[in-house]
Amino acid sequence: MSGQGSIRVTVWNEYTDEQKKKEVTDVYPGGLHNTIAGFLNKDENISAKTTVITDPEQGLPDSLLENTDVLIWWGHIYHDRVDDKRVLKVVNQVHQGMGIIFLHSAHRSKPFLALTGASGRLSWREAEEKSRVWTADPAHPIAAGIPENFALEREEMYSEPFGIPQPESTVFISWFEGGNVFRSGVTFRRDYGKIFYFQPGHETYPAYHNEIVQRVIINAVKWVNPLVRVSNRDCPNVPALERITPK
Amino acid sequence: MSGQGSIRVTVWNEYTDEQKKKEVTDVYPGGLHNTIAGFLNKDENISAKTTVITDPEQGLPDSLLENTDVLIWWGHIYHDRVDDKRVLKVVNQVHQGMGIIFLHSAHRSKPFLALTGASGRLSWREAEEKSRVWTADPAHPIAAGIPENFALEREEMYSEPFGIPQPESTVFISWFEGGNVFRSGVTFRRDYGKIFYFQPGHETYPAYHNEIVQRVIINAVKWVNPLVRVSNRDCPNVPALERITPK
Amino acid sequence: MSGQGSIRVTVWNEYTDEQKKKEVTDVYPGGLHNTIAGFLNKDENISAKTTVITDPEQGLPDSLLENTDVLIWWGHIYHDRVDDKRVLKVVNQVHQGMGIIFLHSAHRSKPFLALTGASGRLSWREAEEKSRVWTADPAHPIAAGIPENFALEREEMYSEPFGIPQPESTVFISWFEGGNVFRSGVTFRRDYGKIFYFQPGHETYPAYHNEIVQRVIINAVKWVNPLVRVSNRDCPNVPALERITPK
Amino acid sequence: MSGQGSIRVTVWNEYTDEQKKKEVTDVYPGGLHNTIAGFLNKDENISAKTTVITDPEQGLPDSLLENTDVLIWWGHIYHDRVDDKRVLKVVNQVHQGMGIIFLHSAHRSKPFLALTGASGRLSWREAEEKSRVWTADPAHPIAAGIPENFALEREEMYSEPFGIPQPESTVFISWFEGGNVFRSGVTFRRDYGKIFYFQPGHETYPAYHNEIVQRVIINAVKWVNPLVRVSNRDCPNVPALERITPK
Repeated sequence: MSGQGSIRVTVWNEYTDEQKKKEVTDVYPGGLHNTIAGFLNKDENISAKTTVITDPEQGLPDSLLENTDVLIWWGHIYHDRVDDKRVLKVVNQVHQGMGIIFLHSAHRSKPFLALTGASGRLSWREAEEKSRVWTADPAHPIAAGIPENFALEREEMYSEPFGIPQPESTVFISWFEGGNVFRSGVTFRRDYGKIFYFQPGHETYPAYHNEIVQRVIINAVKWVNPLVRVSNRDCPNVPALERITPK
Repeated sequence: MSGQGSIRVTVWNEYTDEQKKKEVTDVYPGGLHNTIAGFLNKDENISAKTTVITDPEQGLPDSLLENTDVLIWWGHIYHDRVDDKRVLKVVNQVHQGMGIIFLHSAHRSKPFLALTGASGRLSWREAEEKSRVWTADPAHPIAAGIPENFALEREEMYSEPFGIPQPESTVFISWFEGGNVFRSGVTFRRDYGKIFYFQPGHETYPAYHNEIVQRVIINAVKWVNPLVRVSNRDCPNVPALERITPK
Repeated sequence: MSGQGSIRVTVWNEYTDEQKKKEVTDVYPGGLHNTIAGFLNKDENISAKTTVITDPEQGLPDSLLENTDVLIWWGHIYHDRVDDKRVLKVVNQVHQGMGIIFLHSAHRSKPFLALTGASGRLSWREAEEKSRVWTADPAHPIAAGIPENFALEREEMYSEPFGIPQPESTVFISWFEGGNVFRSGVTFRRDYGKIFYFQPGHETYPAYHNEIVQRVIINAVKWVNPLVRVSNRDCPNVPALERITPK
Repeated sequence: MSGQGSIRVTVWNEYTDEQKKKEVTDVYPGGLHNTIAGFLNKDENISAKTTVITDPEQGLPDSLLENTDVLIWWGHIYHDRVDDKRVLKVVNQVHQGMGIIFLHSAHRSKPFLALTGASGRLSWREAEEKSRVWTADPAHPIAAGIPENFALEREEMYSEPFGIPQPESTVFISWFEGGNVFRSGVTFRRDYGKIFYFQPGHETYPAYHNEIVQRVIINAVKWVNPLVRVSNRDCPNVPALERITPK
């Protein structure tokens, strides 16, 4: 499941009972993490692997995080089972430069809440409804090659108000057939780490097979991929640079 | 047309031939500026008057601007006829603290472009379509008392991508029946002046008779109303506060 | 320690051994929390009480948080001893509207990290040096009545780079005699809650006796004081507002 | 004066009498525009040329702007002589993607004011004083390879409050020996165009000979260099994407 590219991506998924139901595996055989890693690995600059919550250390061992440039997170009903110590490790790696992409229901995952500081609150509906994703910031690298809008025939509805801090950029805003809107693609930065949240991707709908959605995620991987990765995040005691008048 | 309140509002409107057509005057007899000033003057803290482009100095004499706390701007087909010197006066007053509210097609007015620095670009459609205005920042003072969403049965469609700088707050995002979305209520600040843009208000539709729209505009008047009004905007030469070592 | 004002402030302080040393109590007899509550209670619109980490439930019982409009936080060497469950309660109250002010070394407190999502990293120095606090956003309500700059003859140095998200406003930037600068007054918002961080206030220096510092904190209390306090922060399942075409 | 690189840079300078005085030409023989183009052309990815206000069309003909990826602007006492029509051309090219870098006193140039919408106000002092430039956003591409701080032994002092909109990033903040601070490196975006303002560069001091300053400007050229350049900035009338119920 690993390509030859220079950006090392880890796709993390819950992948528990709920995601092994026939209605999900019909759309994503082997789990949506494998679909995502699959299209990422077609890009010559990306090398993606997968990991799930039932793997050792919940699929998030230190050595993996330290060697991951970009972590992609898909979680839903097991948010609460992710260990707080693992969350802290993820957050620290983001502060040091690791990029992170939160997909769909990850808006309520522990790492998303820990990194944004907000509630992730929204309202939702599963109703086989059409969504149109609008590019609100067409100059953003994540929007490169993405049309002014594109349709997803069936998507879970997520609605404003969305409990997030003011994004650095609101790249996408989605329209839903049932009358709602949602800031569906937003970026943040925390210390050296870049963050992208992207709304499409309910597990029973084929969003991750859509070529435009794939292009957004590939663009996002390249945008959150760190320029530098730092290590020390302590607060050093430093000497004066200029003379201080004795008092 | 002037109330007794403490916030001095001037509602500026083009009010030329196009706005004196029957289809407009049926909805806004006397012009939409009078409708707007009318509902503002029902608020005990607001005193609103009106002015139009055919008034002396295009309705924007220095003495009026200097005594206006909040300027409301509605313009459309005569944007280009507004004199650049008058625009500069408006911009300078905003820098000194005057609040300004741009309504609907004022997204391409000279003062809006001069204050945002962007293009104001959008796409549009007049199609008797329904709009739903969503409150994306419900904690913002402009959203006080405004429901999570409200419908306008007929509104001109304005669509993303919208050529504006990243707003300080995206208070409202609108859904349009024909499949589009738009950041319909956004705030900016420039020096001491607060700015609010609000999308509803095509001249042949009754948006300004809608009580929720009125409440948004009243809230916005109170929010952009300056805490302080300053005068000198030059760049002073100042002495050192600390000793500089001779070199 | 409680006044008659309408804004209910709780000043939380560690107040453990370190803060009971003579060099601290000489400056702040009874602890700096009492000094802060003392000057706040002189404002007729504020009613401040104090609480410390050794009080029941670490001074942060649910009933107190629910009845606090503005929480002021001063902590330093016992950051890690604050219970995660208490932190979560504080964060949730902020999301629901409770204002919060972080003073000085609270940049590494658990609630600050949880609400900003960043590292709070900085460098520092204790060297009896002069600081000048510059007002970078003079139009902000927190800067009302504050001069363009003011001096603190002795302050602990905190230096950039400061590990915080892009602030909503950078109200103050500090100059330090030894050659450093620091964004010393910054605002954030998270859901319904407003946040202010303010750098002055090392426990052995008299910053909280300075009238300008007091004015900044009083202004901040009034600015973070919520317009509304909400309760439900769940993600509701909502019906469609418009007709969805069956597929 | 032109290299072989792929990023086409135009360095625009007033270069009038004031800049031909001995105290300036001693530091920048041939004008600071030639010094700047000179170090840029040492980078294999950059091809820089120069132009001045006394050239035809004030050095800003349409054909040049259309073939410029990044415009660098240095102006001071002749801001007012730049023709408004030329300014509009510059602004429109920025909206279409041309990057622009404003140096030093360009904070009051017409294009800077037109693009930021603010006053550019600051206070200043020429006193042979030391400045320290601090990197406040070390993860920003413009800060790549730049130390945490660096000193300029003599620089003109520019001080807060600085009349600019909230920057997208505050990359640098400067400390001045005489007691002042200044947001000396800030970024903005307007439509497709990226903007960087950088404070160092008084014409009688050797800032542009400093290798770290050169590195900042080279980084900035690469950062503002557009990903895409668009043409049409009109507001199109567009058809509905979804069915609108007749009313």
